[in-house]
Amino acid sequence: MDTSPAWDSRFTSLYTDHYELTMLQAALHSGAAERRTVFEAFARGLPEGRRYGIVAGTGRLLEGLASFRFGPSELEFLEQTGVVNGATLARLAEFRFTGDIWGYPEGEAYFPYSPVLIVESTFAEACILETFVLSVLNHDSAIASAASRMVSAAAGRPCLEMGSRRAHEEAAAAAARAAVIAGFAATSNLEAGRRFGLRTVGTAAHSFTLLHDTERDAFRAQLDSLGSGTTLLVDTYDVEAAVRTAVDLAGDKLGAVRLDSGDLVAQAHWVRELLDSLGNVHTKIVVTSDLDEYSVAALRAAPADAYGIGTALVTGSGAPTAGMVYKLVGRTNDAGKFAAVAKSSKNKINVGGRKHALRRLDSSGTATHEVLGVGRLPPKEPHGRPLVQQFISGGKLLPGWTGPEAVARARRRHADTMAELPAVVNRLQRGEPAIPTIYA
Amino acid sequence: MDTSPAWDSRFTSLYTDHYELTMLQAALHSGAAERRTVFEAFARGLPEGRRYGIVAGTGRLLEGLASFRFGPSELEFLEQTGVVNGATLARLAEFRFTGDIWGYPEGEAYFPYSPVLIVESTFAEACILETFVLSVLNHDSAIASAASRMVSAAAGRPCLEMGSRRAHEEAAAAAARAAVIAGFAATSNLEAGRRFGLRTVGTAAHSFTLLHDTERDAFRAQLDSLGSGTTLLVDTYDVEAAVRTAVDLAGDKLGAVRLDSGDLVAQAHWVRELLDSLGNVHTKIVVTSDLDEYSVAALRAAPADAYGIGTALVTGSGAPTAGMVYKLVGRTNDAGKFAAVAKSSKNKINVGGRKHALRRLDSSGTATHEVLGVGRLPPKEPHGRPLVQQFISGGKLLPGWTGPEAVARARRRHADTMAELPAVVNRLQRGEPAIPTIYA
Repeated sequence: MDTSPAWDSRFTSLYTDHYELTMLQAALHSGAAERRTVFEAFARGLPEGRRYGIVAGTGRLLEGLASFRFGPSELEFLEQTGVVNGATLARLAEFRFTGDIWGYPEGEAYFPYSPVLIVESTFAEACILETFVLSVLNHDSAIASAASRMVSAAAGRPCLEMGSRRAHEEAAAAAARAAVIAGFAATSNLEAGRRFGLRTVGTAAHSFTLLHDTERDAFRAQLDSLGSGTTLLVDTYDVEAAVRTAVDLAGDKLGAVRLDSGDLVAQAHWVRELLDSLGNVHTKIVVTSDLDEYSVAALRAAPADAYGIGTALVTGSGAPTAGMVYKLVGRTNDAGKFAAVAKSSKNKINVGGRKHALRRLDSSGTATHEVLGVGRLPPKEPHGRPLVQQFISGGKLLPGWTGPEAVARARRRHADTMAELPAVVNRLQRGEPAIPTIYA
Repeated sequence: MDTSPAWDSRFTSLYTDHYELTMLQAALHSGAAERRTVFEAFARGLPEGRRYGIVAGTGRLLEGLASFRFGPSELEFLEQTGVVNGATLARLAEFRFTGDIWGYPEGEAYFPYSPVLIVESTFAEACILETFVLSVLNHDSAIASAASRMVSAAAGRPCLEMGSRRAHEEAAAAAARAAVIAGFAATSNLEAGRRFGLRTVGTAAHSFTLLHDTERDAFRAQLDSLGSGTTLLVDTYDVEAAVRTAVDLAGDKLGAVRLDSGDLVAQAHWVRELLDSLGNVHTKIVVTSDLDEYSVAALRAAPADAYGIGTALVTGSGAPTAGMVYKLVGRTNDAGKFAAVAKSSKNKINVGGRKHALRRLDSSGTATHEVLGVGRLPPKEPHGRPLVQQFISGGKLLPGWTGPEAVARARRRHADTMAELPAVVNRLQRGEPAIPTIYA
């Protein structure tokens, strides 16, 4: 059991649909591959009933684009399977992204048609990024959007991300990152801790109690090894007996107990009373067990101190993908002049042309509109906040958008943005987007 | 833009929740870490209304377990962040899985409580696999279970996996693999093609048409470069005009046209008539546009030749995770004797003890029951088919369960299993599991 998989590669270029490369081949043939293009990633709508979305993934995307190259392994696969011809392979071997990328920074709120990412370069370079761009933004933004509602429902109590086991192993790490951007306090996922600099936390599982001959043995082992500040899981057999055993062993320094089943609201109340009656007024109560934003809201009046949230977080709480698309909105003609383009459509709004965006605020600083300008910035407004920032210039990554620092900055940006949005974003009920998107 | 991320590692060991390692630390302290244990992965139920589930991911899991080791980078992270103490780090540095793993092979159907994976080893070894085991099985089985219903609804017409852009980039590759196991004909995902030996396919996007000055220019470029067997996307402007242009340029050898919007049933009918009237009786019609198992079923009476399925597939069509858990069901005591264990629970069935399983068939070969034996194989039955197979013995991977060959074999197994299940599995309506799970 000591093999390295044959496909192991540090390049991200095959996170790509087959047709991106055959379109490149055909466009190289026609010469149109060299036309300058503008592609935009945006969502035509928010998931049903959602009031806002939160952008996440841009930092991961920019890190991945640095490795979006075709090495010997990638080229060999494409050659052997005949996906593209020799001329295209030669072009891919030289591939470097040399264009410009702008967009909404991570942690920012977005609304229908917000230009979340704007890629300007030749068609050859912009086309083949499509799948990877959308995979990252659609996944991470879906998770951040769900996480933000949970944090809002928790009203200041910490939310802990614990959903790794219900998501693909790599998606789990990305989900932890997105959750922290949207205000989660920590994650259980160690890979996310390593890769993104997140704080990791954990309690114990039922298996640990069952492994020992008695619950008392298990608690003693955990306390002896991890200290009295640890969190003991108290619902393996009988909650009341477990709480009494825990206090008996740990005294009033016991960090926390975890409740993972049953009626959490009722239990939190009587466990709090029991802990207090035993003198453990500082011992906290962590609740878990298939929580989502609605059950977190229902726990607001209960004496729960922290929420461990898993499945609902990593599956986007009913909206596992943000539904963003990546559309060509402009390209040059043979004379080198830009022309706006858009697919004709009966029931979708397709507006060609490069978008700019600002968030209009009222005099009290509350957001009122998402204002999009086509081809140019919307006219200056006294309280308008420009939303689009540049990430890559001439193929060069601009500083500040990647790495653990970018996660921390995005987390602050999320808090700032939420404070600026109208209060309706804190309502869990289904409804329209919190602010309308309008064209200047 | 040429950096390698600092976290890059070939090891899978940090796809793990924080508490797995702190439980190991505490169990090393108490000595219980050396007890022999049996952990089982199973689902307490199927997603609401589903009749059956399909196991997938086991091959990926077994490949990943070969790299489940703690190298310098992993140990350094755990040390710097203080997740575990020095004694535990020393143990992790030596970690190799030396136990046994059994389970349902990929492509097999599963039902509530089916022991999809069984891990027998010391607690130290079995405990820390939990998160990774569940991440892989929960994701891949969710996708395979949804895919199987789509394939069933397609009633023999090929389903093509095209959902990469709506899933995390790594989850997308795994989703393609799971879809092909459950009967999909091919995928658009190149990484999945490389890694798992899957056939990749593609058509063209609206951007390719919009890039060119006219639709005719775009079609000519695609046909010239990719040959007349290609699939032309005909709904960028006007479908009828596009079909006529396509036939004008490609003649009766045109491979296929793709419809990606509007009323697909009605369009498929009149586009078929139009193609036939132009002499293109062999030109196929590929339909795409947010298809799921229900819309595929609705297209059964329409002349569509293949289905491109994206979002619904990669998000598990409403059930993005299989909800499997990994539970300690038995462990030795200090005398080395095995004892069955289970958490007490008011509203969940928790049966301790190592499970065995067979599928009971009636005299015509149709499945009637999922029969579980606790601690031993259920009694032999004339038509009972044993379901649990061994994957790893004494830490050694047994042949046949990994690599592209395992995917092909799982695909055949899925077809065989589906043929054996009662006809109710082909109904899309919500209902009870197709066969009941009983204990022998």
